[in-house]
Amino acid sequence: MTLPAIIDALQCGTFDREVLKMLRDGGYRCVTPTLGFWEGTLESLDSLARWRDMERENAELIRIVRRADDIRACIADGKLGILLGYQNTNLLEDRIRYVELFADLGVRVLQLTYNNQNELGGSCYEKEDSGLTRFGREVVEEMARCGILADCSHTGDRTALDTIEHSPGPIAITHANPASIFPHARNRSDRVIKALAERGGVIGCAAYRNITPDWACATARGFADLIARTVDIAGVDHVGVGTDFSYKGDDAFRAWMRMGRWSRQLNYGAGSASAPGAVSKPDWLPSADRLSDLVPALGEVGFSEPEIAKIMGGNWLRLYEEVFG
Amino acid sequence: MTLPAIIDALQCGTFDREVLKMLRDGGYRCVTPTLGFWEGTLESLDSLARWRDMERENAELIRIVRRADDIRACIADGKLGILLGYQNTNLLEDRIRYVELFADLGVRVLQLTYNNQNELGGSCYEKEDSGLTRFGREVVEEMARCGILADCSHTGDRTALDTIEHSPGPIAITHANPASIFPHARNRSDRVIKALAERGGVIGCAAYRNITPDWACATARGFADLIARTVDIAGVDHVGVGTDFSYKGDDAFRAWMRMGRWSRQLNYGAGSASAPGAVSKPDWLPSADRLSDLVPALGEVGFSEPEIAKIMGGNWLRLYEEVFG
Repeated sequence: MTLPAIIDALQCGTFDREVLKMLRDGGYRCVTPTLGFWEGTLESLDSLARWRDMERENAELIRIVRRADDIRACIADGKLGILLGYQNTNLLEDRIRYVELFADLGVRVLQLTYNNQNELGGSCYEKEDSGLTRFGREVVEEMARCGILADCSHTGDRTALDTIEHSPGPIAITHANPASIFPHARNRSDRVIKALAERGGVIGCAAYRNITPDWACATARGFADLIARTVDIAGVDHVGVGTDFSYKGDDAFRAWMRMGRWSRQLNYGAGSASAPGAVSKPDWLPSADRLSDLVPALGEVGFSEPEIAKIMGGNWLRLYEEVFG
Repeated sequence: MTLPAIIDALQCGTFDREVLKMLRDGGYRCVTPTLGFWEGTLESLDSLARWRDMERENAELIRIVRRADDIRACIADGKLGILLGYQNTNLLEDRIRYVELFADLGVRVLQLTYNNQNELGGSCYEKEDSGLTRFGREVVEEMARCGILADCSHTGDRTALDTIEHSPGPIAITHANPASIFPHARNRSDRVIKALAERGGVIGCAAYRNITPDWACATARGFADLIARTVDIAGVDHVGVGTDFSYKGDDAFRAWMRMGRWSRQLNYGAGSASAPGAVSKPDWLPSADRLSDLVPALGEVGFSEPEIAKIMGGNWLRLYEEVFG
C-alpha cells in the first residue's frame, strides 16, 4: 500500500530544522509537539511565539495547523503540520477567559493536568484523584466551545472519566497505553478507554519504554500487536499513535519534566528508582521516521488498508475535524 | 479587668488609615489582613509592596510584624501590628523555592487553598477533597522551615487533617467555626479541631454571618457562648478570634472573592441562592473596634482573666512564637 498520512498526537523535546525535515520526509503530515509542561502564561506565550518563528524559518517544510483542512493541505502539498499543544493548563493561570485567547492564538490541545494535581483535576501520580473540579468543568466546556481538544493522558482515571462524561464533545488520550496490558500509573484503565471510545474519542498508543511492554518496544510487529489489543478494547475507529517520542532530551530536560520547580526532592516521573535516568528508544523506533515501519506490521497482524490508514492518522483527523473543524 | 491585647487572625477588604486607627484605638495589637485571594506572584508582591507603603505612611499607628517580639513591641508602645497573610498559595506559582522568598519578605501566614482545589490540596467547596498532595506536603514542610504559619480555614477537612499530621509544627484554622455547632462547608469538624489542638494549633472563631449561628451574631454574650463551646472541643489554649471582618466590601469585591477569574458563572462562596449578596455584620459587632465588648462577655460565661487574655490574643501569640519565633 502507499504510505498513509502519519499523524502523531504527542512528541516532546527540542525540535529543530533537522527534526522537522526528518518527520516531513518520514511521511508525517501532522505532529503535536509539547509546548510546555509546567510553564505559566508568559512562558507559554514565549513557546508559542518561538513556533511562529520556526514556521517562518521553515516555511517550505511545516505549517502550523488550526483546522482539519490545514492538515489536509499538508497531506496535499507534503508539508508537516504542527498542531500546537501543551501538556498542562498552567498557561491559564486560573483564568477561564484565557481558554478563548489561547484558542485564538492557535492552541488546539491542552492536557488537563500534567504530573501534579491542579485547579482542574487530579493527576495519575497523586495518591488520590479528586476527579474534575468545578473550575475543571468550566474549562472543559470552554475548551469544547473554543475548539481545543482535552487530553487526559496524565490525569488520573477518575478525572479522565469525569472529563469524558462532562465534555460536550469527544476528548483524547493522546499518549498512553491500556493499563490492562501494561500496568503503570501513566496508562489508563479499560473502563476509561471504553468510555472514551463510546463518546467518539481516540487513544494514542505510546512508544515510550517506561510505559510500553518490552515486546512492543522490540519490534514494529510487537507494537502492531499492542495496537491490535488496544483496538480490541476501543474499536478500530478510536486508536491512533501518540509516540511520546522525545528529541535531544538530557538530564536537565528530564529533571524539568519530572520536578519542574515544585520539588526540592528527586522525582522519577514515569521512571523509577530502578530506572531513574534516560530509557532507550524502542528497538524498532530508534528514529521517529521509522514509524512508517508500523504500516506493514499492522498489515501482518490483520488490519486492512483502510484500517491502517485510520490508525496511522485517519482517526486523529476525524477527531480533530469534530473538535475544531 | 484591663483590656487584654487583642489579636485578630483574619480580616479582609480595604484597609485605610481610618480603619487602622480604629483598630489601634480599639485595643488591637495585631491583625492579619488578607493580602490576596486568587492573585499570582506579581499581584501578590504588589499587595505586599502596598502594605510597606502603608507602614511608611502610618508609621505612628502600625508596624509590620515578623516575629512574636514585634507584636510584644506593639503591646508595649500601643501600635497595631500587621501580620502579612494571604488566603491562598497562588503566589507560589508552583515554585517550592518561593516559600523562602516570601518568608524573607515578611509573609507569615498562608492559607493552603482558598475556595478551589489547587496544586497543594482540596478545598471545602469542592465535591471531593483530595487531601494534601505531594507538592502540598513539600510546601507545608518548607513553610515550617521558613517560619510561615499554615492555615486550613478554607481547605476541606481531609486536607486539614493531612496538613496537621504532616506539618513538623502546629498549624492554624484562623477563621472558621465548629461544623458541629453550625453546619457549613466552611466550618471544620470536631475531629479536625481536636487534631489541630493536640498538635498545638489554634482555631479562630469567626464572626461572619454566613458561617456563624444567629445567636452568636446577636450579642457578644452569644459569641462568648460560641467560644465556650469551641473551647469544650479544643481546650482553652487552642481557641482565639479570627473575625473574618471585611471593610468596604461591595458587589465587585464579593464577585472577586467568589469567582476570581476562574468562572463565567455565578458562585455564592459562603453565601447561597437565598443569601446571595452582602450579609450584615453581627449585631454586636457593627464596627471591628467593638470586639473589646467580648472581654466582659467572656467573663460572664465563666472564663477567668488569664483565660480571657489567651482567647483575645494570647493563644495566637504563643502559636506565632512557636512557628516564627
